[in-house]
Amino acid sequence: MDLRTGIGTDVHRLVAGRPMRIAGLDWPEEEVGPEGHSDGDVVLHAACDALLSAAGLGDLGSNFGTSEPEWAGAPGHDLLAETLRRVRAAGWDVANVAVQLIGNRPRIGGRRAEAEQAIAEAHGITLTLSATTTDGLGLTGRGEGLAAVATALLHRPGTIGSEST
Amino acid sequence: MDLRTGIGTDVHRLVAGRPMRIAGLDWPEEEVGPEGHSDGDVVLHAACDALLSAAGLGDLGSNFGTSEPEWAGAPGHDLLAETLRRVRAAGWDVANVAVQLIGNRPRIGGRRAEAEQAIAEAHGITLTLSATTTDGLGLTGRGEGLAAVATALLHRPGTIGSEST
Amino acid sequence: MDLRTGIGTDVHRLVAGRPMRIAGLDWPEEEVGPEGHSDGDVVLHAACDALLSAAGLGDLGSNFGTSEPEWAGAPGHDLLAETLRRVRAAGWDVANVAVQLIGNRPRIGGRRAEAEQAIAEAHGITLTLSATTTDGLGLTGRGEGLAAVATALLHRPGTIGSEST
Repeated sequence: MDLRTGIGTDVHRLVAGRPMRIAGLDWPEEEVGPEGHSDGDVVLHAACDALLSAAGLGDLGSNFGTSEPEWAGAPGHDLLAETLRRVRAAGWDVANVAVQLIGNRPRIGGRRAEAEQAIAEAHGITLTLSATTTDGLGLTGRGEGLAAVATALLHRPGTIGSEST
Repeated sequence: MDLRTGIGTDVHRLVAGRPMRIAGLDWPEEEVGPEGHSDGDVVLHAACDALLSAAGLGDLGSNFGTSEPEWAGAPGHDLLAETLRRVRAAGWDVANVAVQLIGNRPRIGGRRAEAEQAIAEAHGITLTLSATTTDGLGLTGRGEGLAAVATALLHRPGTIGSEST
Repeated sequence: MDLRTGIGTDVHRLVAGRPMRIAGLDWPEEEVGPEGHSDGDVVLHAACDALLSAAGLGDLGSNFGTSEPEWAGAPGHDLLAETLRRVRAAGWDVANVAVQLIGNRPRIGGRRAEAEQAIAEAHGITLTLSATTTDGLGLTGRGEGLAAVATALLHRPGTIGSEST
């Protein structure tokens, strides 16, 4: 049985007047959102990077960057779907992905199950979502940006039980 | 066999005149300690968050936050004990938890084995403890706070060997 | 079957006039490099810390710090070789190590395969390399330093398939 671990982090700057889309959900009550031409969904971006990292397939930049302009600005859900297609094409199944959002807002607690279930239904994986703050310190504590850290566990198909596929 | 990985980070602000309690140990020679009404033990908090993350049970905030006021300010050891109770009640065993303390002080090297052994005896898990600094940079390098990052590996009971149970 | 996960992070300050050596490769076009008496290779340092963390063998400081002066300033490749010797002597095989470089430069995309292959050939492990930036925020976004995060997965010899040994 082959197993692989992977890790990914992501940070996006927050600015006024941008929609907040995090963990694949809209948070219309937020007054700031990630800057840039993608949706800046740090949760799904970190998840993609952890999956690519575990599979040895590079990262968001090498998979969806300037060399593949058709992916510029793609929504997080689309990046995750294509990431999973590439990871599975390389012969891996997903045991799970765990992502922690780091920042003051949005407060995901009340919608954690909704986000996890939407990802499980759309992508057939177990992604567990959690959150923390940094006591007012650092780039997320000052509200300059949002961050996420993720780890992924992959295995060869058929070798371990899989919860959600 | 089912396996799950999880990740957790924690940051607490350091202030003068507060006791330093890290990795479940007291560090009476330290002149600053974590602010707040909990003990601010970033090592045990990150460990709890990694365990909850792997099990898909949310995070410290959703388990021990405002909705469960009886846990407000609880010591790190109590939070870890209750976290493990909930993780095991959900049908998971702990392969191990790995935690890295990020900060200038305390210098844990001389007491690493003591901390690891106390946690193993109190909680029946393998928690490996390490530490690093950030070359004077960032919130931990400037001494504004202490941080920790943790990863956890869970499995279904009986499916893999377990070292400490 | 026994499995262990580990985690490691590393940060080094960047200064003018120092050679940039990252992921075991030289980047002669860079105008800044890590300060200090080691090569400051945050990718290999984080990998070593994740491996030591998973094996419960402490960290770079406790293995190669002031108590073992013969390792002061050793290149990252030498630290990784000795780390692997100690991890294997403790009875562990490496499933894989995943490392994400966090910083604006060097841009590793074009040399990712070269770095991964050189590490596989020199050390007999699968180390997957990825990179990200932080949208201009924090110590790496401002160019003050370079950071890396790593996770490692270990197993007992013979219990799971291994790709590169």
